[in-house]
Amino acid sequence: MTDHKRILIVGGVAGGASCAARLRRLCESVQIIMFDRGPYVSFANCGLAYYVGDVIKKEENLLIATPELFRQRFNIEVRLKSEVTAIDRDRRCIQVRDLAKATTYTERYDELVLSPGALPLRPDLAGIDLPGIFSLRTIPDSRMLRNWIQDCQAASAVVIGGGYIGMEITENLVRRGLKVSVIERENQVMSVADPEIVTNIHTSLIRQGVDLCLNESVTGFEPDKNHILKVNLASGRQIKTGLVVLCIGVQPETQLAREAGLEIGESGGIRVTSEMRTNDSKIFAVGDAIEVRDVVTGQDSLIALAGPANRQGRIAADVINGRTSTFRGAQATSVVGILDQVLAFTGPSENRLKRLGLWGRMEKIYLHPGHHAAYYPGSSPITIKLIFSKDDGRIVSFQAVGKAGVEKRVDVIAMAIQKRATVFDLEEAELCYAPQFGSAKDPVNVAGMIAANVMRGDVALAHWEDITGTSSLIVDVRNPSEYKKDHVKGALNLPLDQLRGRMGELPKNREILFYCFVGQRSYYAARALGQYGFKVKNISGGFKTYLLHKEAQSLR
Amino acid sequence: MTDHKRILIVGGVAGGASCAARLRRLCESVQIIMFDRGPYVSFANCGLAYYVGDVIKKEENLLIATPELFRQRFNIEVRLKSEVTAIDRDRRCIQVRDLAKATTYTERYDELVLSPGALPLRPDLAGIDLPGIFSLRTIPDSRMLRNWIQDCQAASAVVIGGGYIGMEITENLVRRGLKVSVIERENQVMSVADPEIVTNIHTSLIRQGVDLCLNESVTGFEPDKNHILKVNLASGRQIKTGLVVLCIGVQPETQLAREAGLEIGESGGIRVTSEMRTNDSKIFAVGDAIEVRDVVTGQDSLIALAGPANRQGRIAADVINGRTSTFRGAQATSVVGILDQVLAFTGPSENRLKRLGLWGRMEKIYLHPGHHAAYYPGSSPITIKLIFSKDDGRIVSFQAVGKAGVEKRVDVIAMAIQKRATVFDLEEAELCYAPQFGSAKDPVNVAGMIAANVMRGDVALAHWEDITGTSSLIVDVRNPSEYKKDHVKGALNLPLDQLRGRMGELPKNREILFYCFVGQRSYYAARALGQYGFKVKNISGGFKTYLLHKEAQSLR
Repeated sequence: MTDHKRILIVGGVAGGASCAARLRRLCESVQIIMFDRGPYVSFANCGLAYYVGDVIKKEENLLIATPELFRQRFNIEVRLKSEVTAIDRDRRCIQVRDLAKATTYTERYDELVLSPGALPLRPDLAGIDLPGIFSLRTIPDSRMLRNWIQDCQAASAVVIGGGYIGMEITENLVRRGLKVSVIERENQVMSVADPEIVTNIHTSLIRQGVDLCLNESVTGFEPDKNHILKVNLASGRQIKTGLVVLCIGVQPETQLAREAGLEIGESGGIRVTSEMRTNDSKIFAVGDAIEVRDVVTGQDSLIALAGPANRQGRIAADVINGRTSTFRGAQATSVVGILDQVLAFTGPSENRLKRLGLWGRMEKIYLHPGHHAAYYPGSSPITIKLIFSKDDGRIVSFQAVGKAGVEKRVDVIAMAIQKRATVFDLEEAELCYAPQFGSAKDPVNVAGMIAANVMRGDVALAHWEDITGTSSLIVDVRNPSEYKKDHVKGALNLPLDQLRGRMGELPKNREILFYCFVGQRSYYAARALGQYGFKVKNISGGFKTYLLHKEAQSLR
Repeated sequence: MTDHKRILIVGGVAGGASCAARLRRLCESVQIIMFDRGPYVSFANCGLAYYVGDVIKKEENLLIATPELFRQRFNIEVRLKSEVTAIDRDRRCIQVRDLAKATTYTERYDELVLSPGALPLRPDLAGIDLPGIFSLRTIPDSRMLRNWIQDCQAASAVVIGGGYIGMEITENLVRRGLKVSVIERENQVMSVADPEIVTNIHTSLIRQGVDLCLNESVTGFEPDKNHILKVNLASGRQIKTGLVVLCIGVQPETQLAREAGLEIGESGGIRVTSEMRTNDSKIFAVGDAIEVRDVVTGQDSLIALAGPANRQGRIAADVINGRTSTFRGAQATSVVGILDQVLAFTGPSENRLKRLGLWGRMEKIYLHPGHHAAYYPGSSPITIKLIFSKDDGRIVSFQAVGKAGVEKRVDVIAMAIQKRATVFDLEEAELCYAPQFGSAKDPVNVAGMIAANVMRGDVALAHWEDITGTSSLIVDVRNPSEYKKDHVKGALNLPLDQLRGRMGELPKNREILFYCFVGQRSYYAARALGQYGFKVKNISGGFKTYLLHKEAQSLR
């Protein structure tokens, strides 16, 4: 355990800070110096939007650890406002720019860990540098944004980009009473999820007064008087607004690595082994700047998440200390709260699987169970999409959206995917139940049961997007009152509870597609009539899913 | 799929009802008759306490399905107020007592499914049949209890037994403004969990005005005037109360099975195969009346839970239909809400493992992480106890108690146990994170990291219960202000952040046991000083765990 190595760490948030602390726990004698360009280390970057929203009231609450704590507790030297500008791999040293003193010096390393993170993308648009246009990556960023709102009495904001940060800052600006416009180039926000899954989020944004502009982009900015900006859109529309937040995404900060000749993957992140080593055996890289293997798709991907970054930091520390430790890859488990909705998922979306050419042997199911027992007051539905392999029932991914209980089910499935579980495992999962927390048949079980029925051939599935122009007969098995309120055009109404007595009304030589509201009654119908020789399919997820698809398609 | 078998089902709740519905989905042609002694089928027995508490306002909300629905939707005949009194296995028929008409008749079966459930225990005490003494198993039970509270203007109640039902009815009676006394024979409520884990529940009960009587039992009841009962206790104390609820437990209802010569297991439940078959191949049994294999301990056990009962019903239906389907056993995953506390667990407690002689190669850790990121307001701690195998790191069980986020972590671990995961899997689990939902290092990850550190030999653990009279030096590494407030008697204070400068004050020839508030700082201390040649251990779970143990031991 005695080792007088010198380990330098570039970047002091998440991965870098985790690596440093773990290094010290593993070895008292190595010298550890951590450099960060900014004025802080180890801050809660996932909390910045909530600081803007005044949910987190004090800036110091965002500081997880200070340089003093690193020094006292871990005997780690932290150098702030210190930008590492070059790596000399042959001489094993880095060039550091002291931003406060405006001086440059070199430091020798035995091992170097790069944790530079990712940079917010800044599009090259007219007026992009005008005051009032912000990104949200650092504490100073959020402080400036907060101050701007207060000092300029901003009453409105334009958020450009509808991803994680875009949605979180939207929620927080709405919370502060600003009128928010969201400009999103795609036909949906949160494009990591499938379009029909985010329909509820669009609805919720609009219902809460957000001006949601999909299929729209910004062409430039102009100043107006009184701290007002004019935002010009591709559609020709112009929005006058009190401030702009750029949330169009991030890109791995790879300049330093690139200039040092370290290998960059096709995804644009620094390429590392499962031991977090770059192509220089003395240089490690972790966090948002690297590409990681997606454990579900097998692809090298950019997955910028705090959990994996922390794990990578620990693994680099283990390996530097001569331990065997490897990163298993990431599965992109994620959650975002958006006003009254929670969207969470683990594993790839249908869109992503199709883009990667991996959809072939996949199947999907939809369901809309309550987040706890229906008989206990306050149950609210969760819309779930489960994707699995038709070959062996292996769970591929899980997307869920609703007001409550969403992240719990995603975490259970995240563990199931990690342990290569199948839909049959979900069917028999023993989860905890009391009526205020779940159901005797939890949404996880129900998803497993529906998928297992498909795997066993007990029911053939149809999907709404395949039905346009179908020659099959569509039968709505809900009650007449439900049917009357709204139904799929051309669908026949034959309530489930009358099915056995009236099956003579249905054709035996034509495929029948059953639907109900969420897909349970239509499954009963399909099971029953299938046994009487009818050619039947159940449309997964019922009329509720139909409405989500319809809404999503209307935005194409 | 054509089968004119006659399948009779005894008991129409949970297991029985699930079995009946699944049977019909699998086969349209079998005849299915379901008998229940009571006036309802398929009711929400887990909701009864909440109906008493007026959380669930209407009795009809407790009805999940009616006989009409079973008839119309599933072509299943339901006979209520029909008690099955005998089984003639040779002639394959049952004797049914029509409780309404007071007549008896026989019904022939091809296959019989027993789902009689469990009966509340009624101790043979003086006055047990007095008015005002209730059990809580059926809708009429809860209706009578509700009416009694209203009609007699009951202001106080005695709940006998501190298990699931006892705790749920206590919460609901408190909610209705009654002064509640809980009489529990053991030195803790919820004895399925370990005593130090329920300490917070004792505190919460007392804080909210519950008269908690541990190590106490009832010797009899006497009537008083004005609908008041006198409850006599073993200690000599007498409580005057408006009503009594008996919650001392349930026992499998096996009389019918016993009299028919079906095999009963040592646990007292009907013995079945993993296909849910009794020793008569034409008779199946499911639900609370059977014994099941505990997947963790391998023991045959009574595990009376709704989730497993439903699964067993489905499996019996599958097998009757000639399918291959087996019950994997149960792991006793469970959750109960008790006032402001949530207690949940999966797998056996330390006490149970010790009773079964299975503790030998087990280790345990304690932790007290926040339910979400500390920097986001409203984080509340979860007290966690993880038990794992020292041989291979396999997760054995998980107990957790706190105000929020408890059931989520238990469900993740339940899936992990199902898939035979290890603590190393928990360490690298990728769970969803945003600051209002969790932490970048989720409590599940932290539990895995702590346990993995133990597995890898990075830290030796000590436990508070082993420390009494120790010759080791106990060192409190918290800040002086924390130490001053309260500490373990005889402990030396040496704050973590001064440790490296002051290690000369510590002995090298004597074992040092470190503790802090929750166990993290003391882990850092143990890691650091271990490397300088000190003999060190970390006391798991810190001072917070010490206080829980101390409180629990004071009740012995």
